[in-house]
Formats: sequence, structure tokens, C-alpha cells
Amino acid sequence: MKVFIVHAHPEPQSFSAAMKGAAVEEFERLGHQVVVSDLYAMQFNAVASIADFTNRANPDYCVYALEQRHAVQNNTLAPDAKAELDKLLWCDLLVLNFPIFWFSTPAILKGWIDRVFVSGVTYGGKRFYDRGGLRGKGALVSVTLGGQEHMFDPESVHGALESMLKPLLQGTLAYVGFKVYRPFVGWHVPYISNEARTEVLAAWRRRIRHLDEQPTLVMPSLNDFDDALHPIKTERKADSGETNIAAQGSFV
Amino acid sequence: MKVFIVHAHPEPQSFSAAMKGAAVEEFERLGHQVVVSDLYAMQFNAVASIADFTNRANPDYCVYALEQRHAVQNNTLAPDAKAELDKLLWCDLLVLNFPIFWFSTPAILKGWIDRVFVSGVTYGGKRFYDRGGLRGKGALVSVTLGGQEHMFDPESVHGALESMLKPLLQGTLAYVGFKVYRPFVGWHVPYISNEARTEVLAAWRRRIRHLDEQPTLVMPSLNDFDDALHPIKTERKADSGETNIAAQGSFV
Repeated sequence: MKVFIVHAHPEPQSFSAAMKGAAVEEFERLGHQVVVSDLYAMQFNAVASIADFTNRANPDYCVYALEQRHAVQNNTLAPDAKAELDKLLWCDLLVLNFPIFWFSTPAILKGWIDRVFVSGVTYGGKRFYDRGGLRGKGALVSVTLGGQEHMFDPESVHGALESMLKPLLQGTLAYVGFKVYRPFVGWHVPYISNEARTEVLAAWRRRIRHLDEQPTLVMPSLNDFDDALHPIKTERKADSGETNIAAQGSFV
Repeated sequence: MKVFIVHAHPEPQSFSAAMKGAAVEEFERLGHQVVVSDLYAMQFNAVASIADFTNRANPDYCVYALEQRHAVQNNTLAPDAKAELDKLLWCDLLVLNFPIFWFSTPAILKGWIDRVFVSGVTYGGKRFYDRGGLRGKGALVSVTLGGQEHMFDPESVHGALESMLKPLLQGTLAYVGFKVYRPFVGWHVPYISNEARTEVLAAWRRRIRHLDEQPTLVMPSLNDFDDALHPIKTERKADSGETNIAAQGSFV
């Protein structure tokens, strides 16, 4: 399997970086090929702008997605975005490894998504969700955060972490066609003992070793909607035996 | 009233920019003071990194939030972030105006949040949600997107837009203490007629004129949780007459 790990933490010695290192080791030990993009180390340009396009479809008015399509067709996409897009198309499994900043990705990783999940390739026209451009691939999100697990119970103060991550898990990864695994979460990391951190890393390695036994999250299927995206009533979801985060009120 | 509009769109002639312009006009016509940060025009640095801190609390290991606190105490925060923080503290109403990129903010705006919502000022310790550092202020999100309204019905393909925006509306704005108004949404903007766009702008102006009549979204209250953030059972939410997006299964 080809594994593409995108890592985004401003501190090279962080626990998040240790998780990235453990993932590289574990995937390689399993015989997989691994490529890493360390966005801070690369000083990756986080800002989607007209500077991404040297040959404009419309030099007078920038619709970013339309310029992406034009640039891909004409092979004029900004080289740094193109290099990342090539890794994305190459991989079978995408791993996004980052600390939670404001219940979301750090901006450098959001910018990687804005610039690399290119219209006309990863999505566009009728290619989204289970018909997305990256269907057939898997995606795994691994995060660290300061909060404790009970603060993210569905009834608790923040609600379920997966509902906070909905724009990433559903709106981005599932949208372009990825099968999305349940996120791996390193809870309360700044405040726990070294022993507890060692156990988090061990759990992360176990998660990687047994990834193919994990159910993926239930996401929208275009089969349940007509061409105008009005719902078609079916019993599909009720019949599903998969882990259904929709049933927790978080998704769909 | 003091109004701070943060605008983030890569195309200066965009409909989003027209919404920003209409907001400036309408708030000024109402006698309010208005300050605008146009993040693309400012080429705002979107990446939270150790470069934000010239005088480090810990030169060997960066915990970004701890360095923010240290920098605020010692008046050594990066000048661009400090200037934005000053506007944030000055305002009574924050308006975030942007196009939806991946069901979320463009990265340049996410980076503005990462760098400007400074720990030790906007939140920290027990200061969050209705005890947040910016309590007493209001926040209004205005967005444009390609999707149509029916695609964001709670039962529809993407689920409610407010559930996609939860990390921003609840996890960021409500978290630091803002009262959060229902977002204003310009639906399907790239595909509608000029007449329909004119009507969206008129609706946006009406929304601004009648903002103080709008209910704010129900968000978590720390009164409902003990010091360890375990829920205390109360009837508060059931008694509330406010618009409750929690009741739609999206929040809390």
C-alpha cells in the first residue's frame, strides 16, 4: 500500500511529530511505501490566491476552482501544489496528522487542502462523495488536543469531536471520495504523564496495524439523492451494519 | 457601535467583496464606526509559527498558546497579530465575511483566527464560552457559496450548514465569549442572475439594519457544567425561548 502522511505542527519535537514518526515506522514495518509532507518544514504556502495560476482562464476575474481546472488541463498549476496533488493521486491511504487548533486544522493544513484538492481532479461536476475523484482511497485523521475525552461526549460541553471535525471528515475527505476511518485522538496531551503518552503512541501503532479491520464512517451516498440532490427515501441507512455517526446526530 | 469586518476573498471584484462593501455602507449609514481588515489585500500571514515570538517563554520547545500568553504579557507579540488583536478588543461587533472553502473558512482567515485569538486574552484558564475573554461582544458570519439551500437541509446531502460551521460558530466564536448571530448566507452565488444577486445584497442590508432584533444562537453555558466540565442536569435549555440550533441536533 502507498501511504501519504501530511503532518502540520509548528514544533518539531511535539508529541504530534512523535505520532508522525511512529506512523512512518509502523507503516514501513508493515511493508508499505510511505511519503511524508511536513508542511511547517516545507514552509508550505497556505494561501489559495491568483498567484497559483500563471496562465489564467480569465485574467480579469478569478474563480479559484475554475482556474484550478484550467491549470490542471494546461499543466500550469503552481509547482508546489502540483507536487502535493501528485502524491495525493499516488497514495492508497492519506493520513492527516495535526494538533487541533480551534476545533479544526491549523491554517497551514487548511491551505494545503484549499490549494491541493484541485477542482476537476478531486471533485467537480457530478464527482463528489461516493462518486468523488479520489474514490477507492482511504483517509485517516490523527490529532492531538488539550481537551479530555469526556468534554467531547455528545451531550457534553463541546459535543462530539467528530461533529466538530465534520467539515474535514465529511465536507472534505468524504466529499472527494475517500473512505474515512474513525479519527485517532491523543486526548489531553499537554497535561498527561510520559507513561500515558507512551500508551497513546502504543495505541496509535496498534490502530495502524489493525487499520484494515476498522469500519469506516458512514457518509452520504449520491444513490440516496436525485440529480438535483433532493433526498430519495430509502431504507439503506437503517439496514447498514456499519458504524454510523449519523445516528449520533453528528452527520448528514 | 464599533464594527470590525474581516474579509477574506482572493478576487477583489467578487460578490463576497460586494457584500463587504454593502456592510460597510449600511453600518456607517446607521451611525456606527467601521474598521475593515481585508486579509488578501493585507497579504496577512496565515501561518501560526515560532516566528510570531521574538522573546520566547521557552526557546527550546514551542507550545503556541503559552508563547501567545507570554508575548501578550511582555508586549512582544508579532506586530501584525497585535494590530488585529487591538481591533478585536476595540469592536462591539465582529463580522467575518468570506466564501465557503471546503465547508469552512479560507485558510487565510483560519490563520487570522489561529494568530489573533490569543490565549490569555480571548480565552484561557476558566475563560471560555459564556465566561470567554470576549463576552459582551457580538459576532456575525456572512458567507457565499456555490451550493443551494436545499442541499443543506438537516436531512439532505451535506446536513445543515450551521453544523458544518460548528467549529467556527461554536468552537471559535462562542468559545471566546461572543454572542453569535445566525449566519447570513448568499446561496448558489456563482450560478444566479444579477437580479437574484441584487436581492441577496438587499437581504443582507436588511439583515444588518435589523440585527439587534435577531436572536443569537444558543451555545453552551458553563453554568450547566461542573469544574471538570461534567454536565450538571438542569432544565435551562428546555425553558429557553431562543432559537436553539442544538434542537436541530447540530450543536452541544
